[in-house]
Amino acid sequence: MMCPSNILPTTAFLLFPATMVTRTIDLRSDTVTKPTEAMRLAMAKAEVDDDVLIHDPTAKHLETEMARITGKEAALFVPSGTMGNLISVLVHCDIRGSEVILGNNSHIHVYENGGISTIGGVHPRPVKNNDDGTIDIDLLHAAIRNPNFEICYPKTRLICLENSHANSGGRCLSVEYTDQVGELAKEHGLKLHIDGARIFNASVALNVPVDRLVQAADSVSVCLSKGLGAPVGSVIVGTKSFIAKARILRKTLGGGMRQVGILCAAGLVALQENVEKLEIDHKNAKTLAEGLNKIKGLSVDIAYVETNIVYFNILKGSHMTALKLGKIMDEHGILLMVDSPSRVRIVIHHQVSASDVHYTLACIKQAMTGVAEENGSN
Amino acid sequence: MMCPSNILPTTAFLLFPATMVTRTIDLRSDTVTKPTEAMRLAMAKAEVDDDVLIHDPTAKHLETEMARITGKEAALFVPSGTMGNLISVLVHCDIRGSEVILGNNSHIHVYENGGISTIGGVHPRPVKNNDDGTIDIDLLHAAIRNPNFEICYPKTRLICLENSHANSGGRCLSVEYTDQVGELAKEHGLKLHIDGARIFNASVALNVPVDRLVQAADSVSVCLSKGLGAPVGSVIVGTKSFIAKARILRKTLGGGMRQVGILCAAGLVALQENVEKLEIDHKNAKTLAEGLNKIKGLSVDIAYVETNIVYFNILKGSHMTALKLGKIMDEHGILLMVDSPSRVRIVIHHQVSASDVHYTLACIKQAMTGVAEENGSN
Amino acid sequence: MMCPSNILPTTAFLLFPATMVTRTIDLRSDTVTKPTEAMRLAMAKAEVDDDVLIHDPTAKHLETEMARITGKEAALFVPSGTMGNLISVLVHCDIRGSEVILGNNSHIHVYENGGISTIGGVHPRPVKNNDDGTIDIDLLHAAIRNPNFEICYPKTRLICLENSHANSGGRCLSVEYTDQVGELAKEHGLKLHIDGARIFNASVALNVPVDRLVQAADSVSVCLSKGLGAPVGSVIVGTKSFIAKARILRKTLGGGMRQVGILCAAGLVALQENVEKLEIDHKNAKTLAEGLNKIKGLSVDIAYVETNIVYFNILKGSHMTALKLGKIMDEHGILLMVDSPSRVRIVIHHQVSASDVHYTLACIKQAMTGVAEENGSN
Amino acid sequence: MMCPSNILPTTAFLLFPATMVTRTIDLRSDTVTKPTEAMRLAMAKAEVDDDVLIHDPTAKHLETEMARITGKEAALFVPSGTMGNLISVLVHCDIRGSEVILGNNSHIHVYENGGISTIGGVHPRPVKNNDDGTIDIDLLHAAIRNPNFEICYPKTRLICLENSHANSGGRCLSVEYTDQVGELAKEHGLKLHIDGARIFNASVALNVPVDRLVQAADSVSVCLSKGLGAPVGSVIVGTKSFIAKARILRKTLGGGMRQVGILCAAGLVALQENVEKLEIDHKNAKTLAEGLNKIKGLSVDIAYVETNIVYFNILKGSHMTALKLGKIMDEHGILLMVDSPSRVRIVIHHQVSASDVHYTLACIKQAMTGVAEENGSN
Repeated sequence: MMCPSNILPTTAFLLFPATMVTRTIDLRSDTVTKPTEAMRLAMAKAEVDDDVLIHDPTAKHLETEMARITGKEAALFVPSGTMGNLISVLVHCDIRGSEVILGNNSHIHVYENGGISTIGGVHPRPVKNNDDGTIDIDLLHAAIRNPNFEICYPKTRLICLENSHANSGGRCLSVEYTDQVGELAKEHGLKLHIDGARIFNASVALNVPVDRLVQAADSVSVCLSKGLGAPVGSVIVGTKSFIAKARILRKTLGGGMRQVGILCAAGLVALQENVEKLEIDHKNAKTLAEGLNKIKGLSVDIAYVETNIVYFNILKGSHMTALKLGKIMDEHGILLMVDSPSRVRIVIHHQVSASDVHYTLACIKQAMTGVAEENGSN
Repeated sequence: MMCPSNILPTTAFLLFPATMVTRTIDLRSDTVTKPTEAMRLAMAKAEVDDDVLIHDPTAKHLETEMARITGKEAALFVPSGTMGNLISVLVHCDIRGSEVILGNNSHIHVYENGGISTIGGVHPRPVKNNDDGTIDIDLLHAAIRNPNFEICYPKTRLICLENSHANSGGRCLSVEYTDQVGELAKEHGLKLHIDGARIFNASVALNVPVDRLVQAADSVSVCLSKGLGAPVGSVIVGTKSFIAKARILRKTLGGGMRQVGILCAAGLVALQENVEKLEIDHKNAKTLAEGLNKIKGLSVDIAYVETNIVYFNILKGSHMTALKLGKIMDEHGILLMVDSPSRVRIVIHHQVSASDVHYTLACIKQAMTGVAEENGSN
Repeated sequence: MMCPSNILPTTAFLLFPATMVTRTIDLRSDTVTKPTEAMRLAMAKAEVDDDVLIHDPTAKHLETEMARITGKEAALFVPSGTMGNLISVLVHCDIRGSEVILGNNSHIHVYENGGISTIGGVHPRPVKNNDDGTIDIDLLHAAIRNPNFEICYPKTRLICLENSHANSGGRCLSVEYTDQVGELAKEHGLKLHIDGARIFNASVALNVPVDRLVQAADSVSVCLSKGLGAPVGSVIVGTKSFIAKARILRKTLGGGMRQVGILCAAGLVALQENVEKLEIDHKNAKTLAEGLNKIKGLSVDIAYVETNIVYFNILKGSHMTALKLGKIMDEHGILLMVDSPSRVRIVIHHQVSASDVHYTLACIKQAMTGVAEENGSN
Repeated sequence: MMCPSNILPTTAFLLFPATMVTRTIDLRSDTVTKPTEAMRLAMAKAEVDDDVLIHDPTAKHLETEMARITGKEAALFVPSGTMGNLISVLVHCDIRGSEVILGNNSHIHVYENGGISTIGGVHPRPVKNNDDGTIDIDLLHAAIRNPNFEICYPKTRLICLENSHANSGGRCLSVEYTDQVGELAKEHGLKLHIDGARIFNASVALNVPVDRLVQAADSVSVCLSKGLGAPVGSVIVGTKSFIAKARILRKTLGGGMRQVGILCAAGLVALQENVEKLEIDHKNAKTLAEGLNKIKGLSVDIAYVETNIVYFNILKGSHMTALKLGKIMDEHGILLMVDSPSRVRIVIHHQVSASDVHYTLACIKQAMTGVAEENGSN
């Protein structure tokens, strides 16, 4: 398990002054992108007003646009994907004693500080995620509490899915699967939330429009600052009533911001500029994965690389460890995320070029080769 | 999954007036026992005072006794096993942002209303329970959060075990296993709580004294009103500091009771009278299991029957269902717990005699035989 | 401010071995009564069953009786008044973001560990209590949140009153006042809960039947172990739907008890035996108050002594302090509650006789006289 | 009481299309300012990185700067003042069962959705605010819980002050008063948090450096988007350990933002550009107050106008109401905040000029005069 937010202290790149390297290729996450010139220009010119008073025109514009794209009634800009998920779960589970069914490998369960419980008092019922990010329908079904036993059971109110599924290497949930879960939820009077931090990646990879992909969902959290490259923010979408409650909760949590149109302007540019670039990211990820798989001592499950995330393993018997490889790459200005002693995560985004991919492959190959000879040469 | 507390509405015995049956054998749970004459006498004579003012001598007596038996510094009487577990988890996890690792099939996770989250704001990290109630040490280890990633991880503070493990059919955790988990906890600065609702059953079955069995635990919740037959209450044990915090939390939750020595007096009798009877319960359970296994159309995994709980399955192809069997037994004054369409739970306690077991076996056999012929006869 | 539950360490009676005194008159609280012979007999004979399975006939009997007396649809036995209030507030405020308006001097706000927030996440809006336990209707009205400002306001859902009002010396809220608050609540779609720990005292003092006195309330918490003298427990009453939710929450909190009919049997006796004795308690309290007021150096506001609670002040200039007086009384076997350096609380109950009152007066008079001469004699 | 965030529906300016007015003077709050050109330029050029990974250089720069100005060890940028206060209270009260003492008229108690309870489970103990925003030291002292009664008392852990105090019309707490509260807190082992949303206004008005003014505080929340005019954000300051915990909680709440340097760049400009302009705001407020006070039918307590907030009252007997005046002003492009039927709030900020003040006075005078004749002319 790894945490995108705090891996730095265990990797070595901080040890090497920036001046030593001539270029930096940041492959730790797609959250690290810098705003483009168009975004900066849009932010500088953004028409803004007090959004807590629901007056900011650019926020409204972005929210309207995201509601349209996702096919939902309404939308709300929030400072982060974590807040988007937190608000969504809490609005659906607004009555004390609620339970949410979610994947045991989902971002909400693993990487969001347990906020739905520790802040929201919602009881999670994690169910086993498959390697592809799905959860077996049977398991979901079995996890729904029998309301006749309410004396000792919390009340199931929500199912959460994640598409694409980060911890599974960015794999995508199909429309068919999502619809099936949506039907199950409806049959039992439950809501369905999709953590769609990277729903545009899934949409592009599956070649299915976003609104179709989330049609079965009552709410979706979409991130602007991952693959889409905006500096800050996510948008949650749902019914008008859901968004009205979400707006109150956003204020409670402290996520109500004043002239937030500044950030929303960049989000609008991200939607215009970067959605189409995701296909290139996916291609670069595939190239990288295939290249890594050919390097002696490494293996990648190519079939798993559906979007912009690549996990590769260092084979047993290698002298290399993930940590050591991370340090060597740091020296080349290539920032990786060490996931475990033998596993590394790479995330491609629009500021990683095909040339960056080839340079990265070359450096990793050299490191792996060097290390094989390391006992001799060092 | 089934809930001992609320199964009644779905079984049929309420439909049959009590006058129709000449005796009742209540096998739904060991919580259904009636106080013995000795308990009633003890309650009638109990010396009492205001226990919220920490003055009740009988409460003190029971607490001292339970602390001695379990080898812990101090003890506290609480109204129920659920409160015992809730207080214990919350005291160990008294800082916002805490996570507890526990079995996905444990009583705390499945049957206690999710109270540790919905009331206590503690984030549960359920890990797969094996059939015998254990959790693989590797899984426990992997579930402990890396404190270096605290920016996105809740803080692991507690591991919970359950001994004997109800949902696994009352199977027992060995001293060796418990000690191993205790060591893991200590290595990582975690606490270990044991839900010992039926720890005396485990102690008797394993022939290990209770204090040795829970030696590795920082706290234990012990139930007096299950196999031990007292009318009401559990006792939690731990360090003096743990119990001091538990006492405050008991008051917060509303579990502080005034002249509670009345109930504690019965608990003291339960400890004197009924611990030694558990061996008979286990023998009766074994007899019942073996008998059921011989009935055509039923199967029991005999090796699983280590204590006083028996799960039996109705084999595929039988015309009988668990619900139908429950109804027929009700007519005979035998109360069972329907666990699923093909599974029934029976719990033996000190008010179930060997003769009751044989009568039960006879009735079930008759029902199973009858049903086989049912298409013809009815 | 003082806390009935924990005052002991600051008084001295623990320092004097019980053998030194020939009788004990416990005036600290009406929670200290011992069960009567009739209660003990009833407990010894009580017909019981598993109340978590909603089967205990004696619990049902008590609940039916209390529902009848209070004029409400349904009732539920709980282990304590604190749990009764906690459950009531949480059921009425079951949606995240709720606020309750209550007296700043009310038992719920001052003496219940802040549980409605720290366990229930309900935001309290305390409003100034008058000396007589009322809250000005205007203040209540002003404290109700304007629902149009929900973006920054929690949602008012409940008003709580307390009758009789402990911290005001047991003063009673009239039917007229209670009805007025009830109307205000209804106009704004709010619920009204009455902490009726001592509602029978208020009923007797006002000569108004309990059901009329709480007619405007959606829920009431009634204590059996204060003036009524039962060893343990409170009963909450309300609509069937309220009680159904309360039952679930009672289980969540750990207040579901098994053969609880034992305790309920004593509660039934308390209702039969002790309601009519409250008038005697009130008379004894009045006698005590008048006697104290005549002792040089002491003052009591006689008009405030409406029920069984007497606060008396040690006048400025006296050599006596409340703490010193408490210690001297301890030596005489008389237990008082020191409320502040110059204030003492006495609570009368059915185990305090007229003779006890006179003995207490004599001892206090002697102590006050002695202390006046103390500089000379000691 | 009024809520700056949602007052709009009750004022009329939305009814008048923007085209009808040639200029808009927004006096509803100092949160409505638009970013200056210098801020827009700074945002467009800001050097940024992933701040969740603690890498954003501009965020670090702002945080370092604010720590320096306030004389604290460390700082953290947060999306809003509400989150700043919420995090601060929750970090100081990180153990279940905590209580905070705060003003009954404070922003935290009145306008932040009760988040400290409904999200954080902290029990508030509100104490009466004086007209000048202070709380009597005696009242604060009396509100601190006696730790010996912990069995029924929550544990006091924090005192909150607010400087300047919005609901008191922006009045300032002196250094002497703040120090005194700080000493009280220290004596009792409590923390002191200052809601310093407008601490710079207080600093300028009192002519005391910010660091001296908050010297006694363990944490301060400072807003950049009120008088300082930045588009978004607040900064909290305290010890390194406090900020480390705050950073985790910010992530939990969803306030961790990626390339947040964009917003911080504007915050840095705000500190450079606008602090010195606060004195002009205060002068404008005074001018406005004096002018209003001379208008027949209005009154202002001039002595209360210490900073940038002006409350004025419509005298009894006037035909004008606050709502009607608000509507008339809307027609002139002047936006006011209606606080009650007879009270209006005006807040001055750096985008309100002396000329705006005179125009506003003229319009209000005309409206008040017109209304006096209204019965005749309309």
